[in-house]
Amino acid sequence: MTTPQTRTPPPAAIRPGPAPWQRRFYEVIFEADTPAGKTFDVALLALILLSVAVVMLESVDNATLGEMHPRLRAWLRGIEWGITVLFTLEYLARIACVARPSRYVLSFFGLVDLLAVLPTYLGLFVSGTHVLATVRTLRLLRVFRVFKMGQHVSEANALLKALRRTWPKITVFLSVIFCAIVILGTVMYLIERDHGSGFDSIPRSVYWAIVTMTTVGYGDIAPRTIAGQSLAAVIMLFGYAIIIVPTGLFSAEVMNYARPPAGPPPGARTCPRCDAARHDAEARYCNRCGERLGEPAAD
Amino acid sequence: MTTPQTRTPPPAAIRPGPAPWQRRFYEVIFEADTPAGKTFDVALLALILLSVAVVMLESVDNATLGEMHPRLRAWLRGIEWGITVLFTLEYLARIACVARPSRYVLSFFGLVDLLAVLPTYLGLFVSGTHVLATVRTLRLLRVFRVFKMGQHVSEANALLKALRRTWPKITVFLSVIFCAIVILGTVMYLIERDHGSGFDSIPRSVYWAIVTMTTVGYGDIAPRTIAGQSLAAVIMLFGYAIIIVPTGLFSAEVMNYARPPAGPPPGARTCPRCDAARHDAEARYCNRCGERLGEPAAD
Amino acid sequence: MTTPQTRTPPPAAIRPGPAPWQRRFYEVIFEADTPAGKTFDVALLALILLSVAVVMLESVDNATLGEMHPRLRAWLRGIEWGITVLFTLEYLARIACVARPSRYVLSFFGLVDLLAVLPTYLGLFVSGTHVLATVRTLRLLRVFRVFKMGQHVSEANALLKALRRTWPKITVFLSVIFCAIVILGTVMYLIERDHGSGFDSIPRSVYWAIVTMTTVGYGDIAPRTIAGQSLAAVIMLFGYAIIIVPTGLFSAEVMNYARPPAGPPPGARTCPRCDAARHDAEARYCNRCGERLGEPAAD
Amino acid sequence: MTTPQTRTPPPAAIRPGPAPWQRRFYEVIFEADTPAGKTFDVALLALILLSVAVVMLESVDNATLGEMHPRLRAWLRGIEWGITVLFTLEYLARIACVARPSRYVLSFFGLVDLLAVLPTYLGLFVSGTHVLATVRTLRLLRVFRVFKMGQHVSEANALLKALRRTWPKITVFLSVIFCAIVILGTVMYLIERDHGSGFDSIPRSVYWAIVTMTTVGYGDIAPRTIAGQSLAAVIMLFGYAIIIVPTGLFSAEVMNYARPPAGPPPGARTCPRCDAARHDAEARYCNRCGERLGEPAAD
Repeated sequence: MTTPQTRTPPPAAIRPGPAPWQRRFYEVIFEADTPAGKTFDVALLALILLSVAVVMLESVDNATLGEMHPRLRAWLRGIEWGITVLFTLEYLARIACVARPSRYVLSFFGLVDLLAVLPTYLGLFVSGTHVLATVRTLRLLRVFRVFKMGQHVSEANALLKALRRTWPKITVFLSVIFCAIVILGTVMYLIERDHGSGFDSIPRSVYWAIVTMTTVGYGDIAPRTIAGQSLAAVIMLFGYAIIIVPTGLFSAEVMNYARPPAGPPPGARTCPRCDAARHDAEARYCNRCGERLGEPAAD
Repeated sequence: MTTPQTRTPPPAAIRPGPAPWQRRFYEVIFEADTPAGKTFDVALLALILLSVAVVMLESVDNATLGEMHPRLRAWLRGIEWGITVLFTLEYLARIACVARPSRYVLSFFGLVDLLAVLPTYLGLFVSGTHVLATVRTLRLLRVFRVFKMGQHVSEANALLKALRRTWPKITVFLSVIFCAIVILGTVMYLIERDHGSGFDSIPRSVYWAIVTMTTVGYGDIAPRTIAGQSLAAVIMLFGYAIIIVPTGLFSAEVMNYARPPAGPPPGARTCPRCDAARHDAEARYCNRCGERLGEPAAD
Repeated sequence: MTTPQTRTPPPAAIRPGPAPWQRRFYEVIFEADTPAGKTFDVALLALILLSVAVVMLESVDNATLGEMHPRLRAWLRGIEWGITVLFTLEYLARIACVARPSRYVLSFFGLVDLLAVLPTYLGLFVSGTHVLATVRTLRLLRVFRVFKMGQHVSEANALLKALRRTWPKITVFLSVIFCAIVILGTVMYLIERDHGSGFDSIPRSVYWAIVTMTTVGYGDIAPRTIAGQSLAAVIMLFGYAIIIVPTGLFSAEVMNYARPPAGPPPGARTCPRCDAARHDAEARYCNRCGERLGEPAAD
Repeated sequence: MTTPQTRTPPPAAIRPGPAPWQRRFYEVIFEADTPAGKTFDVALLALILLSVAVVMLESVDNATLGEMHPRLRAWLRGIEWGITVLFTLEYLARIACVARPSRYVLSFFGLVDLLAVLPTYLGLFVSGTHVLATVRTLRLLRVFRVFKMGQHVSEANALLKALRRTWPKITVFLSVIFCAIVILGTVMYLIERDHGSGFDSIPRSVYWAIVTMTTVGYGDIAPRTIAGQSLAAVIMLFGYAIIIVPTGLFSAEVMNYARPPAGPPPGARTCPRCDAARHDAEARYCNRCGERLGEPAAD
């Protein structure tokens, strides 16, 4: 009886329109329970991956692949345009078959569906921006959801809840880190700026501080003076010591979330005669005095 | 009744002076409950960000931005000086309107407010040091605090508590790491010094060991010999294996901190005769003196 | 009674054949309880390490070791071939002495044993592929298992269980990361492609995004423009903030796993009439049918 | 009564010899309770830091510091020799004033004290090895212990306990990683060896795999081909996903260590009349039927 709680219903439900053709379309496009719906989703998945691959391939420069055959380039463009047109039609179909189009259009996936087609058209006016079509990968989240992953969605929600509860703490934490990064970056700038080691401005030093604190460490900017390297070492050990903070906070948060609540379990009842508490939800008789308890049906 | 405990009152409270104008100033400058106070804080926030941005922009060298127009440079200097003067006046105003100026001046934020204005003046004598004005970012912490983030402060305190409790353990841990780093750095120096791979002194090798242990890994110094690379691999796996230690310690600490106190369980009762507490909800007799307790129905 | 549960019996048990010579072989080859079996395993361990070392040494190019003496090269080849032949014979012996050869051949270690000998033979036809013989290291897992590490296997299973339970959550998490990486990589490509900083195609930018998000940070590709470095900084802080998610999830999972099962508490009893279980230690009456339970003294 | 347990007594106690002068020496050298002892320890601490600093400074090459004045070099050598002689005398004094010299010599700190003086003498025969004198940093651990950090030692022990309990699991984990690293390194070698990207031998590729898995990422070796970068990306995500494993295991271990044991608390008793269990250690009467329990003194 408690499992439904874990399945969080969508905040603003999107429903098919009244007309029968709308319902039929809706079943195919939005759901995956019918064979047609499943086929549609698989096709969609394939198209998304294909189109993203095409866009990426287009961007691979000649230096890497050797002069691409112009025909191949034409083919890629053609495929991308074809898929874009299909996605546009699908988008219109989705709008057509839902009860409240506005509600769909403004939903997360509604916006994603729109963003998925815009870049290609935008590319007609602003050259090069069509590569933004890779935003289509976001559509994978829908398919990923539609498939057999109902509980995953609820898990994602649980994840978000835990993150949201941890967020304030982490915000405090990050804002302190932010100050440390700005100030340490400035000091490193003062120390290293005249040694051609890449600290040629405060923003760049701050960038270096972030690269270092997060232990990414590109090495494109690295201290050379003894003083700079000493301070850098301190910063690293500092960053090494503090990465534990958000991890610990979040782990504890997830733990508390996973832990069963203290006190009597949900649905525990008390005996009307001897007041012994903590009878579990299915108990029919008091386990102290044998008194008959109210029917479990009661709760 | 326990929530107040989480709100830690400031150790040395800063209060407005007796004069009415002092109280009025105090409301505006130190508090954010009145519209005037809120406006003041927002303006302060904007000024801080602006001044930090200006200082950073000034430091951006010509190589990056192209020869800056001298007028722009003059503008930046002007803005910085203007803000510095404003901050100086604000600092004096804060001193003027509190009851015990010394208490404010020596408080954390009092020192920060002073440090926020000093570098610019210092820059008049020691060229270049004015960039230290970025220390102003620390002032953000105040605004950040003044706004609606009361509980964040208490969270920060909880964080600090947990960190402080974990600190001794982590100190032991880090001191062992320190020894390991010094010794391993020396060995790497012996192995690599003649191969022009950057290990040209023990301090530098130690710096490398820190860069490696913390998984920052710039690559400006990297072993080239088989022996050096083998030892480096061991060091990495070692560092990889030990980063878990502080994280685990801190997580556990936060957990214990988050766990409900071991005190009397919910529904615990006290004996009317001997006041022995901690009788669980089902207890019928005092387990100290045998006195019959009120019926569990009582709770 | 619950400890056996922790020891997971192999899904498809591999047993010796009926003939006595099979049983004898089986004892030596598959088990490690007899002196002969122990000796065999130690020899196997030594051979595996030796052969992997040989293959690695062969691959060390002249630039590093100086022109290897042709005789040394011949020796290495000889040793590798010798070990390969031995492993082949061992493989056949294993097939010969088990009851159901197919079951062994298709088992994990059966496949590993086959893969351990194939590359050398494959090297006869496709030059260079013989180095794949390093896949033999997988055989170490068997020896490692055969030795005194029975409980380690069960620990590994516990590990896998926890991982499997955490997997769905982490899948959701990683798929979101995947989208972020693709999109951020595309944006970085748009920003940096004309600055010769290595972002010369979307796949490469995505590769960079992965290198950055995972805090590996080679530095072979690194942003140079202010805009690129700013976005990179955001990506790093983002990656820094999210690495806590899987860690927290897994820690919590292991914790719950380590926590005593939610099943009947120690000392729980079963009703003699209706067999309802889960009565706690103090229960006097069955909470299903009201039947009087044996005195708690019973346990 | 349980606190003493936390203070782990040294396995093999080192005691002063019978003679009064031995006891006096022992107080000064081994203990820090008397003013003399404290002074001695502070002096020791200073000497250790000084000598390590000297050894490091000596190693700083001319390229960095400019041609060092020969007299400075002589001074450094002199200081190092002086400290070495002092440490030698101290070592002999320690041997002289303990009851069982062998027990001290073979103790951890006994070996450290010996290792602290050997390198300088060794440097007379094998040039350059005297830099190993940095092993003296290990002596800091003693001073660190002698000071006011009694409980830190016990904390270190608790740490070691938790680590030891987690070790088997982590061993299994690391051995699997080891196999993955060897095999992936080999594959990368096959893919990248002809592209001058540094994968010029399997050991080097394995080294690269370790550098990548541990997210150190020097960048001195980095894949260039599309195939290599794709595999590298997989390796990184893999390493990113698995670093959570040991962390989770260790956190859980520390948690379980910190958590109060499940089941009836230690010293819980059962009522002789109604068999109600879980009376805490101080209970005098059964909280079910009021029966008098055995005196708590009993346990």
